[in-house]
Amino acid sequence: MLDVALLGCGGMMPLPNRYLTSLCLRTNGSMMLIDTGEGTQVTMKLLGWGFKNIDAICFTHFHADHISGLPGLLLTIGNSCRSEPLTLVGPPGLGRVAQSLLVIAPELPFDINVIEMEHKKGQTVELCGMQLSAYPMVHRIKCLGYSVYLARAGKFDLERAKALDIPVNFWNRLQKGEIIEHEGRVYTPDMVMGGARRGIKVSYCTDSRPPNGLDDFVRDSDLFVCEGIYGENDKLDKAVEHRHMIFREAAEIASSANVRELWLTHFSPALTQPEAFRANAADIFPNTVIGRDRLSTTLTFED
Amino acid sequence: MLDVALLGCGGMMPLPNRYLTSLCLRTNGSMMLIDTGEGTQVTMKLLGWGFKNIDAICFTHFHADHISGLPGLLLTIGNSCRSEPLTLVGPPGLGRVAQSLLVIAPELPFDINVIEMEHKKGQTVELCGMQLSAYPMVHRIKCLGYSVYLARAGKFDLERAKALDIPVNFWNRLQKGEIIEHEGRVYTPDMVMGGARRGIKVSYCTDSRPPNGLDDFVRDSDLFVCEGIYGENDKLDKAVEHRHMIFREAAEIASSANVRELWLTHFSPALTQPEAFRANAADIFPNTVIGRDRLSTTLTFED
Repeated sequence: MLDVALLGCGGMMPLPNRYLTSLCLRTNGSMMLIDTGEGTQVTMKLLGWGFKNIDAICFTHFHADHISGLPGLLLTIGNSCRSEPLTLVGPPGLGRVAQSLLVIAPELPFDINVIEMEHKKGQTVELCGMQLSAYPMVHRIKCLGYSVYLARAGKFDLERAKALDIPVNFWNRLQKGEIIEHEGRVYTPDMVMGGARRGIKVSYCTDSRPPNGLDDFVRDSDLFVCEGIYGENDKLDKAVEHRHMIFREAAEIASSANVRELWLTHFSPALTQPEAFRANAADIFPNTVIGRDRLSTTLTFED
Repeated sequence: MLDVALLGCGGMMPLPNRYLTSLCLRTNGSMMLIDTGEGTQVTMKLLGWGFKNIDAICFTHFHADHISGLPGLLLTIGNSCRSEPLTLVGPPGLGRVAQSLLVIAPELPFDINVIEMEHKKGQTVELCGMQLSAYPMVHRIKCLGYSVYLARAGKFDLERAKALDIPVNFWNRLQKGEIIEHEGRVYTPDMVMGGARRGIKVSYCTDSRPPNGLDDFVRDSDLFVCEGIYGENDKLDKAVEHRHMIFREAAEIASSANVRELWLTHFSPALTQPEAFRANAADIFPNTVIGRDRLSTTLTFED
């Protein structure tokens, strides 16, 4: 089970009625944030999931609207009595940028680990019980798209466990992947576990022109959160100029990648009524949702 | 005439219903901010005074709740098409701290001047058409209290100008302080201007124990904006521990300094109902106002 909340849906600057784009993922008591602009901690407080269990914060890139909330957020996490280390993930240079911003939050009650991902394909790290993969985007500065995958183990084969005469008190340990030696016999998980089943995949891509191969990167996502800075088709030139995507382009990727649902976000401050342009995306990808602050869902493993 | 707006009244962290403490002063089209925590640009937008004419931003100290909004605010000022230089004022180290924070706002369309005030008495600079004075506070790190004074020239003496036979087209220039030579005669402002009249004084002091001599620094202020982190008298020990003031202490300074009005601000997130403790201040200084986001007033020269 994976809880997902879009903490804000704005781009460029926080507005009175729109927080900056940020995604919160929660599974098994562990939380991951992607992007923390100015005010993310406030919408996070409104969400009500707490701060203490934020184990990782990922950054797409270092424009202020995606990272300026970091010092305040870390201080608030500190005030929630966290003492366990917290991991920051982002493009090359993250260590230097984070260190600069933390000049105003010099004393935190937890350690910070920094993982700098390269601006290239094929990188995955394990975080918060999920596989986090990064993909190079096409923006004015180095920017990464992310995809998280919550894996699901195979099904436990009760009949087979009985047939092989495996002691019942080993079943749970085998299910968790343990290899057990007992009275001269070796029990391995593959004796009782079926093949891995489909997990849950969420992708988050913002601040980019549509990169080559992004559809493969986000393929079959249960949820694809993607920027659409403008809703109007005739603002494509402006989007190209600023290295962003319009609604239609996000929908084209969603369609080509066979995702289940698309959430649009990172609206320009000039786009005051994003709902008015939903059809520009939905005509191409019907299951399009216009993002709003704290739009949330719970994704479950399929039956 | 001086417009004053308390942009937020919170301390420590921004809350869904309370922005961080920040003061905006506007006179003759020029604006000065004191402190810019996370979200100050949003409450500033709600205030509706615009961003382009912010000529100076002052900082009491470098705790995140007083400065973390700087990069985002400067970018938003940049988006308002400002190209004139902007001045930052603060305690020693401001240049280094600002430079660190601006790692995420590297390209601004205006220059930034930095004035580092020493952590001692007796320093005044001219900014936004006002005299800005600083006073050393008593906090966990170096912190400054500020006082702004909008001076008022003497009254133009019409009868005297006529009696001295000063050409009418010189009157306005003399009023503005100009010395004029014309046909062998020298005209000086003191020939027609009375002595300086009472100006307007606003003081802003937060994040400090009550420093010795602060009453003299804020003496006769038209408006004294002062922290009161807790309303309860029995939270004095806690205020002492964290180097803050409670309502009663702010009121004692207001009373001793003969200010006209006291606005309390910088409430702890734990102080959800500051109004409930107003009497703890008002019993000592009756003209006490509990601060709220965007509490505003216009101070005028007295008749």
